[in-house]
Amino acid sequence: MKDSRIHMVADHAIRPQAEDVIFGLAARAAQAVEAHGKDAVINATIGTLLEDDGSLVAFKTVYNTLKELGNSEIASYADLPGEPAFLEAAVKAAFGSYKPEGIVRAVATPGGTGAIRHSIANFTNPGDTVITANWYWQPYQTICDESGRKLDNYNLFTPEGQFDYNSFEECFLKHLNKQKRILAIFNTPAHNPTGFTMSDAEWEKVLKLIRTCAEDGENRIVILCDIAYIDFAGENARSFMPQFSGLPENCLALFAYSASKSYTMYGLRNGAIICVTPSEEIASEFFYSCAFSNRGIWSNGTRGAMAVIAKIYGNEDLYNEVESERNHYRALLKVRGDAFMNAAKEAGIPLTNYCGGFFVSVPYSNPRELCDKLIEDNVYTVPLQKGIRLAICATNEEKSAKMPFAIKKALEELKK
Amino acid sequence: MKDSRIHMVADHAIRPQAEDVIFGLAARAAQAVEAHGKDAVINATIGTLLEDDGSLVAFKTVYNTLKELGNSEIASYADLPGEPAFLEAAVKAAFGSYKPEGIVRAVATPGGTGAIRHSIANFTNPGDTVITANWYWQPYQTICDESGRKLDNYNLFTPEGQFDYNSFEECFLKHLNKQKRILAIFNTPAHNPTGFTMSDAEWEKVLKLIRTCAEDGENRIVILCDIAYIDFAGENARSFMPQFSGLPENCLALFAYSASKSYTMYGLRNGAIICVTPSEEIASEFFYSCAFSNRGIWSNGTRGAMAVIAKIYGNEDLYNEVESERNHYRALLKVRGDAFMNAAKEAGIPLTNYCGGFFVSVPYSNPRELCDKLIEDNVYTVPLQKGIRLAICATNEEKSAKMPFAIKKALEELKK
Repeated sequence: MKDSRIHMVADHAIRPQAEDVIFGLAARAAQAVEAHGKDAVINATIGTLLEDDGSLVAFKTVYNTLKELGNSEIASYADLPGEPAFLEAAVKAAFGSYKPEGIVRAVATPGGTGAIRHSIANFTNPGDTVITANWYWQPYQTICDESGRKLDNYNLFTPEGQFDYNSFEECFLKHLNKQKRILAIFNTPAHNPTGFTMSDAEWEKVLKLIRTCAEDGENRIVILCDIAYIDFAGENARSFMPQFSGLPENCLALFAYSASKSYTMYGLRNGAIICVTPSEEIASEFFYSCAFSNRGIWSNGTRGAMAVIAKIYGNEDLYNEVESERNHYRALLKVRGDAFMNAAKEAGIPLTNYCGGFFVSVPYSNPRELCDKLIEDNVYTVPLQKGIRLAICATNEEKSAKMPFAIKKALEELKK
Repeated sequence: MKDSRIHMVADHAIRPQAEDVIFGLAARAAQAVEAHGKDAVINATIGTLLEDDGSLVAFKTVYNTLKELGNSEIASYADLPGEPAFLEAAVKAAFGSYKPEGIVRAVATPGGTGAIRHSIANFTNPGDTVITANWYWQPYQTICDESGRKLDNYNLFTPEGQFDYNSFEECFLKHLNKQKRILAIFNTPAHNPTGFTMSDAEWEKVLKLIRTCAEDGENRIVILCDIAYIDFAGENARSFMPQFSGLPENCLALFAYSASKSYTMYGLRNGAIICVTPSEEIASEFFYSCAFSNRGIWSNGTRGAMAVIAKIYGNEDLYNEVESERNHYRALLKVRGDAFMNAAKEAGIPLTNYCGGFFVSVPYSNPRELCDKLIEDNVYTVPLQKGIRLAICATNEEKSAKMPFAIKKALEELKK
């Protein structure tokens, strides 16, 4: 039966008119705080780093620098591909001392999201299937939908909690053989939503497969590393990067770099898409393709935010101050992670393999049910496809240590 | 012959690897200033409002407000569709006291560009043709290209310099009859690149046609008003807006609202797409479609910039201070416009119908030739399809008055 309503948007742009799940849960958590007081409620739905008292962490070093900028440094348009000094700094910020060998170029984007969008829209064909793990950041699906692409998943974890290489290989080959072109998104280190970090040995296997597949010169293989949480992923978070050195020409490595978490710049919309390739020509093609997309979608980026990052990388003292402030919060997050993991061990609840970062996940067959059960105990979490996500970035040590026991209780009650 | 190079971007995303024309000319102008001194060079390529001394205008009232925001008010993510207080303010800022009757909803976008992108991508089908006048802001073409749409043009001016309604009607009907869906972009008041403002009577004819075409219930008619320059368009710039009251359900009015020029927020990427429709359902569909696109492309917008606009509209004193600062610059721009137009009359050069705003245009059959000839005289302008654009927003009174004579001289030399 034909839909009798008048649609003014084109058919492909008719979207569900539903409340965003996370937003709805965050609102319910806020109501619970009103009713029961802050201490009685655990709100683990929020994706930003909070102080122990629940206020947002905004690095003083970053915001002092922003507010000291001349007005016109904030007011001016940025260069379409991004301010050159920012792009240089973004490459340093992304790779640290682990920059792969090859030609590296960057284009500014509004946060990591813009970088993922350009990767999907410019490096796949309409209707193509993009692949990522079956624990994934939900907006990957939204970005694919918006661009008219599909998303397929491989199994992320072996029963032992390691990277399920065999499942990845099967999914990768299936779509590569069909499309002769593939974009595989990896969210690592400190994966959202599980906190999992692929080991260097796991990366080695992935890159070996990719090099083998590249022997068919018709194949086009694009690996996108979403490194949004890299600065909260613990030591050696960048040690996998040099493996992208010396790729064959028909393999392209992309990095979605975000200043959101690394510099608490969530609301300033600042990030970059960075490529690594052995070929000047391919780097140049990448650059002009993404700069064109900037112009044709959101124009240029947030100038003041770019200027701040450029200043941080242009001034050693300031750089050290930012590092020191971030180290304080890294330690804070580690305390919460340890508190959660120790309590989880004690409580004996199922867990995915948390290595670091903002989130922990608990696998469960009916996530919504577990989420609702926890709400009865004033614990607010986010239901995903394969379990629930807990934002330890937003819960202090005490609350982080409480959550595993609340989960244990909920799981037991659900078993009855 | 098949292209033998390895392309890593998908075919649709291979873009020209050419220097941006305006950027290139601006760079040459900067070199000329180095060589000959500021006074000897007229740089009329820049699209932002400059002080008489050539420095950028950044409203003190706006940037003081920004810098007084708490850090976390800048650092936080904004709501995906935009902060509610900002969206309310943006509607007030867009319409003033001329808000059309109907259901009005807004979604935040990065400047006007994001609003135009959503209009094109969500309200037309892939492959469709969007229409606008033959003097137009070049990025309309880029946005269409990026989204896989085409752009067709009607003739903007009658020989008398008025809106060429007949040409518009022909183009509009041609594509509407073929597509049963059309998006027509109007850049008015104070059109970029000519400064032309459609009169209320001209709008009346356009809206009469649209209402007639809406009698075919299968037609979907979307009118996008790009009002980027509305706050520098002189008195009564909004008087056309109430004509969008009481449209048929299958006609949708969209407004691309930008804070870039109105609040000198170019580099903060702040704007909104606003709809006017008689139907709650269509407004809701618009809202969810555009909010979904936000999530799937750039995520949320610049929180601090939204907060500033919300504060301005929430505080009468601050509002009046901003108005008063803007009035000063409106007057400055008017002085330049008058100086240019008086000199143009004296010099007797051809002109398009300038009514207000940042730009004036001179029609000429070989724009690049005229542009190059003017460079010999150290006058830098932007070549378009049908003439050259002069940014009086960037040239002081003296230089504005000089340009027509430089153009006269150049035209005479080209005639030889």
